[in-house]
Amino acid sequence: MRVVVPFAARRPKTRLSDALSADERAAFARAMLADVLAAVAAAGREPEVLATAPLGVEWPVTVDERPLTAAVNRVLAGEADDASEDEADDASEVGVGDEAVAVVMADLPLATPAALSRLFDADGGVVLVPGRGGGTNALVARHPEFRVDYHGASYRDHRAAARRAGVEPAAVDSYRLSTDVDERGDLVEVLLHADGRARDWLVDAGFELSVTEGRVGVERR
Amino acid sequence: MRVVVPFAARRPKTRLSDALSADERAAFARAMLADVLAAVAAAGREPEVLATAPLGVEWPVTVDERPLTAAVNRVLAGEADDASEDEADDASEVGVGDEAVAVVMADLPLATPAALSRLFDADGGVVLVPGRGGGTNALVARHPEFRVDYHGASYRDHRAAARRAGVEPAAVDSYRLSTDVDERGDLVEVLLHADGRARDWLVDAGFELSVTEGRVGVERR
Repeated sequence: MRVVVPFAARRPKTRLSDALSADERAAFARAMLADVLAAVAAAGREPEVLATAPLGVEWPVTVDERPLTAAVNRVLAGEADDASEDEADDASEVGVGDEAVAVVMADLPLATPAALSRLFDADGGVVLVPGRGGGTNALVARHPEFRVDYHGASYRDHRAAARRAGVEPAAVDSYRLSTDVDERGDLVEVLLHADGRARDWLVDAGFELSVTEGRVGVERR
Repeated sequence: MRVVVPFAARRPKTRLSDALSADERAAFARAMLADVLAAVAAAGREPEVLATAPLGVEWPVTVDERPLTAAVNRVLAGEADDASEDEADDASEVGVGDEAVAVVMADLPLATPAALSRLFDADGGVVLVPGRGGGTNALVARHPEFRVDYHGASYRDHRAAARRAGVEPAAVDSYRLSTDVDERGDLVEVLLHADGRARDWLVDAGFELSVTEGRVGVERR
């Protein structure tokens, strides 16, 4: 099984702009990516990063400047990552038609090896993990015709896409994998439930939990 | 194992006031309660409602007008629900010291029998399910000294309380159980992932998903 982690290397996490500067968002996004890659590796898989620009990590990186959906669908189609046309022809013969592909988003710092193993080991031609708000935080595709569309309510659309491919979609019920970090309020979850680089980064940056009138948020020292 | 479902019978779900009138909030809260009770029953357990005022449901109801924390701790202490002092003395001899207690919040319309069974069957003296924002959506207590405090960041506090009782807290990683419905944005999750009375109520009330510039929300016809 290939495990692909897409990463927006330029201007990531713009919805955190009320909490972090652009440079801080980039650093925090890299910390979350490192946590996800470490969790995938600890689950016994070799992660591959699918990035919009080159970046230095200890795992293989494929650069594809196109939007997320197009870049992921290229992987699902089994096309060679950086191949010439001739090589692409060869690669397509050993492409995803013959191999499962997992796609795990890079903004899941609560991911643990146990939660990821539940995903990787789940039965099904298409296995989906919803994100809060209708997104798709992670998936495993074992059917050669399944394609993604991350725009809008992608979880619902991916269920329909699986059925169009003749597969009844399965789901993995995991709070850790369903918690993507997009907005200031999501930082609460990182401080409470994560224990890797993303949490350390937030703590070093001065973030801590605040409880005001029974509501839990974050504040920065 | 006792399975207790606390329910605020008066003025429930005030944080939904931007989406629903007071009467609608009461009806929607009752629909969510019905879904939780049905899921508990389908998981093979007999739910008990712990309500702040009498209400008609097909399961046993104990009325305790006190705040949530005090009412739940009375159950955890093994005191008889509606007993006179003499009866309470008897009841305490067969109280929670001898029996596990599960506490499942009433605003979890995504709960399924499978997710609840993972909670009920999980090993541990104290098993916790976090809610988004630091709360505790469900728990199982098998240790006679464990007590709850639902104010503020209760998940963190409950972990500490378990350790004070000499128990390493366990957790169940379930998006369905971690999704409590408090605010308008949470209605997206009900429309997408639930299939019981709460979802039907929302659909009948005219709510549907809306996708605007890639963001998913709800709108009302």
